Amino acid sequence: MIVSMQEKATEEQIYAVIETMEEAGVNVHRTTGAIQTILAGVGPTANVDLSKFEVLPGVLNVIRISSPYKLAGRAFRPEGTVIEFRNGVKVGGEQVAVMAGPCSIESREQMFATAARVKAIGAGFLRGGAFKPRSSPYAFQGMGIPGLQMMYEAAQEHGLLTVSEVMEIAQIEPMLPYVDLFQVGARNMQNFNLLRELGQARKPVLLKRGIAATIEELLLSSEYIMAGGNYEVILCERGIRTYETATRNTMDISAIPVIHKLSHLPIVGDPSHGTGRRDMVAPMARAAVAAGADAILVEVHPNADKAASDAAQTLYLDQFDELMGQLRVIATAVGRTM
Amino acid sequence: MIVSMQEKATEEQIYAVIETMEEAGVNVHRTTGAIQTILAGVGPTANVDLSKFEVLPGVLNVIRISSPYKLAGRAFRPEGTVIEFRNGVKVGGEQVAVMAGPCSIESREQMFATAARVKAIGAGFLRGGAFKPRSSPYAFQGMGIPGLQMMYEAAQEHGLLTVSEVMEIAQIEPMLPYVDLFQVGARNMQNFNLLRELGQARKPVLLKRGIAATIEELLLSSEYIMAGGNYEVILCERGIRTYETATRNTMDISAIPVIHKLSHLPIVGDPSHGTGRRDMVAPMARAAVAAGADAILVEVHPNADKAASDAAQTLYLDQFDELMGQLRVIATAVGRTM
Amino acid sequence: MIVSMQEKATEEQIYAVIETMEEAGVNVHRTTGAIQTILAGVGPTANVDLSKFEVLPGVLNVIRISSPYKLAGRAFRPEGTVIEFRNGVKVGGEQVAVMAGPCSIESREQMFATAARVKAIGAGFLRGGAFKPRSSPYAFQGMGIPGLQMMYEAAQEHGLLTVSEVMEIAQIEPMLPYVDLFQVGARNMQNFNLLRELGQARKPVLLKRGIAATIEELLLSSEYIMAGGNYEVILCERGIRTYETATRNTMDISAIPVIHKLSHLPIVGDPSHGTGRRDMVAPMARAAVAAGADAILVEVHPNADKAASDAAQTLYLDQFDELMGQLRVIATAVGRTM
Amino acid sequence: MIVSMQEKATEEQIYAVIETMEEAGVNVHRTTGAIQTILAGVGPTANVDLSKFEVLPGVLNVIRISSPYKLAGRAFRPEGTVIEFRNGVKVGGEQVAVMAGPCSIESREQMFATAARVKAIGAGFLRGGAFKPRSSPYAFQGMGIPGLQMMYEAAQEHGLLTVSEVMEIAQIEPMLPYVDLFQVGARNMQNFNLLRELGQARKPVLLKRGIAATIEELLLSSEYIMAGGNYEVILCERGIRTYETATRNTMDISAIPVIHKLSHLPIVGDPSHGTGRRDMVAPMARAAVAAGADAILVEVHPNADKAASDAAQTLYLDQFDELMGQLRVIATAVGRTM
Repeated sequence: MIVSMQEKATEEQIYAVIETMEEAGVNVHRTTGAIQTILAGVGPTANVDLSKFEVLPGVLNVIRISSPYKLAGRAFRPEGTVIEFRNGVKVGGEQVAVMAGPCSIESREQMFATAARVKAIGAGFLRGGAFKPRSSPYAFQGMGIPGLQMMYEAAQEHGLLTVSEVMEIAQIEPMLPYVDLFQVGARNMQNFNLLRELGQARKPVLLKRGIAATIEELLLSSEYIMAGGNYEVILCERGIRTYETATRNTMDISAIPVIHKLSHLPIVGDPSHGTGRRDMVAPMARAAVAAGADAILVEVHPNADKAASDAAQTLYLDQFDELMGQLRVIATAVGRTM
Repeated sequence: MIVSMQEKATEEQIYAVIETMEEAGVNVHRTTGAIQTILAGVGPTANVDLSKFEVLPGVLNVIRISSPYKLAGRAFRPEGTVIEFRNGVKVGGEQVAVMAGPCSIESREQMFATAARVKAIGAGFLRGGAFKPRSSPYAFQGMGIPGLQMMYEAAQEHGLLTVSEVMEIAQIEPMLPYVDLFQVGARNMQNFNLLRELGQARKPVLLKRGIAATIEELLLSSEYIMAGGNYEVILCERGIRTYETATRNTMDISAIPVIHKLSHLPIVGDPSHGTGRRDMVAPMARAAVAAGADAILVEVHPNADKAASDAAQTLYLDQFDELMGQLRVIATAVGRTM
Repeated sequence: MIVSMQEKATEEQIYAVIETMEEAGVNVHRTTGAIQTILAGVGPTANVDLSKFEVLPGVLNVIRISSPYKLAGRAFRPEGTVIEFRNGVKVGGEQVAVMAGPCSIESREQMFATAARVKAIGAGFLRGGAFKPRSSPYAFQGMGIPGLQMMYEAAQEHGLLTVSEVMEIAQIEPMLPYVDLFQVGARNMQNFNLLRELGQARKPVLLKRGIAATIEELLLSSEYIMAGGNYEVILCERGIRTYETATRNTMDISAIPVIHKLSHLPIVGDPSHGTGRRDMVAPMARAAVAAGADAILVEVHPNADKAASDAAQTLYLDQFDELMGQLRVIATAVGRTM
Repeated sequence: MIVSMQEKATEEQIYAVIETMEEAGVNVHRTTGAIQTILAGVGPTANVDLSKFEVLPGVLNVIRISSPYKLAGRAFRPEGTVIEFRNGVKVGGEQVAVMAGPCSIESREQMFATAARVKAIGAGFLRGGAFKPRSSPYAFQGMGIPGLQMMYEAAQEHGLLTVSEVMEIAQIEPMLPYVDLFQVGARNMQNFNLLRELGQARKPVLLKRGIAATIEELLLSSEYIMAGGNYEVILCERGIRTYETATRNTMDISAIPVIHKLSHLPIVGDPSHGTGRRDMVAPMARAAVAAGADAILVEVHPNADKAASDAAQTLYLDQFDELMGQLRVIATAVGRTM
């Protein structure tokens, strides 16, 4: 950490800051310049609350030098993380993975029909939500564990893996038999109790970026899972909130190369939530793969207009098929397969 | 709802939209202009998913006319909501209420010392956090229910009310005996399961605005609590995320008059989280009262620099005393007392 | 326009609003519902200041139904605009155009060396800035018209077109002989006097989106140029300001398909300014083409590290060559050539 | 400046960075830690382009320690700047100044009527716009210099000062006789050529913050004027663009105390543009004074609903009178007069 003192800071103020730094367990190197004094703190600063120093008298500003995440940092595993699933599908490797399915699990028929088509089109994962706490108390609330069981059977029949959102600690245990990849939604990105428990789970986790979260905060949240011993974390960009209202969110495609530079974790693009509009899903899926995404997560439904939730952003299966043809070409442009 | 068709929309497309609107249970009035066709939908549209219509062929855009919240709307109770607590303190009335205390409950001594001073200075509520899921797993995690008990006893001794954050449904029941006002934090503003349960609780709720939430979304979340029968909701502005980095958040003071226009619910200003800096707390507390806030929520600590959490934004008790003197003058300027 | 009255609005208030609407020259259709009254205004509302109605007593909200731009709207030219330049290069057609060159024109040698390489690699336009009002008064301020002349000669020698930024009305006339495409920078997107003058110019205009401009505002600015009779406008996405600090701006890739839906004008992606970092330029250029951009605008320099301005975001020519190979593959995926 | 190297950075990479720093004219202090190497650069770094270093191989990140502005910094004049005008009115002193008038100068009658009332109510400055480049080419474009002359005569008659917006360099000279305070609008905050010319003018400048500008960028722009020798700069907060759509802009009240901490320049609050709604002007004007603003700038009009521009945000003179009564009370709470 670097503490810059104000130009007029007194010796007393400087000593007080040095003392506070030492109390926090860091070694202090002082540089007294012609204009101002700089204090460099070396040591275990990751858990030090820097804002505490900003309000000390005479302090101009305080900067953290070391990145606040360690396990998620690229330096921890420079070659990058590849997560291998039981059927041999990998996320983070040469092949770009595909996760597709409806927003909500609605029926056995829906899941089997979807599984058959998405497998044929080229997906490796079947997605579907079982818990749907909706903004209206009267809207469809999800099928729960019985729904997950349907999804699991449909996936098994077609050699697919399953991914579904976990919303509470109490859901982890009952979901375990049916889910290959736990999804943490954007609203739970900083639900640290849930993340800590998932750090104990023996299944990989797909962690979605919150709509107001910085990339650094996303990496810090992944660190929370990894600190528990679960290193199989996949990150997901799904749109951030900006002043632009033409799309529901602004999908931050640049987060994909930035995360590849800062971290070794795989990163997935979700163009369905990133745009909220069916006619924007294909262009943004293509953009994500072109920018280097390790997988895409797409909402598809055999009868998209009648989907119980997120109908407006859900692709028809034929649209998904056409999109996959385009993505395969783009993957070759970035030295990957699909 | 109003659906505007594109200029080149065909009759077939228009009929398909009318049909979908009727399926959603709304009556359709059609206006065929020289340039484009407008479809007005009248009926129970509050729960209709409008984005579904946006992606229908030939549609230019779709607009919700009626506000999506009803119980929270100003029209529901034009005279405004005043919440009266057991010791006679009111929020939403002529007097501006004051809620003060440390971020975290740390010890019995701390709570009794704080209670004595904040009561003497003029507060009506003692605040303090018992559950502290921190971003670092090694940081202080809060004292839990025993801490709440200490806060409650300190408050009782000095005739104060208590306010504390509830983070999970399981905490509601054990917190009930010790808390006069349940606080829902910014990260839980859209935790609909928690809001629904609080709709059943027989205690008022202080609902904080999420850092990426619009005012409309805040009102929708309050609606969730009220739909359960609990009409005693107090809203709280505590800063939104913007591109500016000089402050941790940008406290949206204009949300105070906007909410007073749109809703009958009281609105509180939290300048501690709104700025994250001790030296900004007093100016922003003054601004909140000047803009019409019904209460202020301030972090204070007998030894602010040593607070177990949020030290940088916590006022010393003497600073709080001085601030209260300024606020009393400002309150008179807006026709209130303090 | 649609004016929704508050539930408690009086007849007097409603009449006052109707009167004000009629004064503005619109015909009013009134719908009196069980809960509230809706007033639909039909007529020439494009130039009506809607905010005037929002503050009338009894008004809940006011919405513009018709889009505020006409000439820029997709309906005006549903087949899309294709701009053909003197050497046969087109922007908006099947081929994705390429504009490349240094941020600043520095010397005759630099421009001739750059022109030779970018032509060989596949660009159709040579770019270079002649006027550089820098944030520091001591920094390099650009070579002015003599610099443009150098760029023009280099472009002529290699069969390239030229594009350069115009910053003031007084520059239009002297620039005319040397520039095939006038660029309007992000800071001038709402310099309406400049846009109006360019509406009189007989050369196409590349209009960059301001860093805080909505897509609607960008289209409104293009309307300003077209209103003067110059219909040859190309739009450009170059990053918007968001709360994320990992990149200088957040390049809004979704603006590309959104603009293609709303407007007939071609849209260009500028990954250099969109990211501000050389290592992010290639992924974002690929994303732009994958999302459907009609052209890309890239900063390249024979000696990128020593560029007089924007060094950090400038590609080496070999990097540009490699990027073009990837882009050609991606173009085929979206049915285009490059 | 501080350059942090990546953990795996090689000695060669470190030497290359040191060399580039020395070329930029800074002295380098190297600290080799157990994990990473830190390079501290001391010297004239204000004009060094830091992003150049960020893309060098092996660099993790680069941070500017010294603030990039000098003349605008608080340290330059710790006691604060007070600007005294010819009639004895001061901005930045104990008294909070008031600037009021219509958005546009419309007629001699309007200006004389306004001047008489605003003087009686307590304003020190008469404001009015003479140049109005509107988004529609058909809207009112302003009265130009003859309008300024009317405003000046009305101000003279009532002992008021005048403030009006300058939009182009060519307007400075003809405006000089009629204007006591040049206003630079939000869209021109980074029009560096205009700022440089105003640095030569012998009249104070009111510099408005751009809607996407950080506080640091605002201070950098003020530096541009001061670098020319004109130290009489007044800053103005008038709302920033955020995701919230309930108000046209989000007025950043916290910018007032932040600027008072960082800079010695006076800061004005403009609640008319900050909110865009007449019913929000009074609460936000009160908030600005409560937060410590040195002046307020308010749009008023004898017949607000019929104002030629900005009607929706313009106060009636009676509303302004009532507001001034409230502001006088609030001013006393912060130790000032009004």
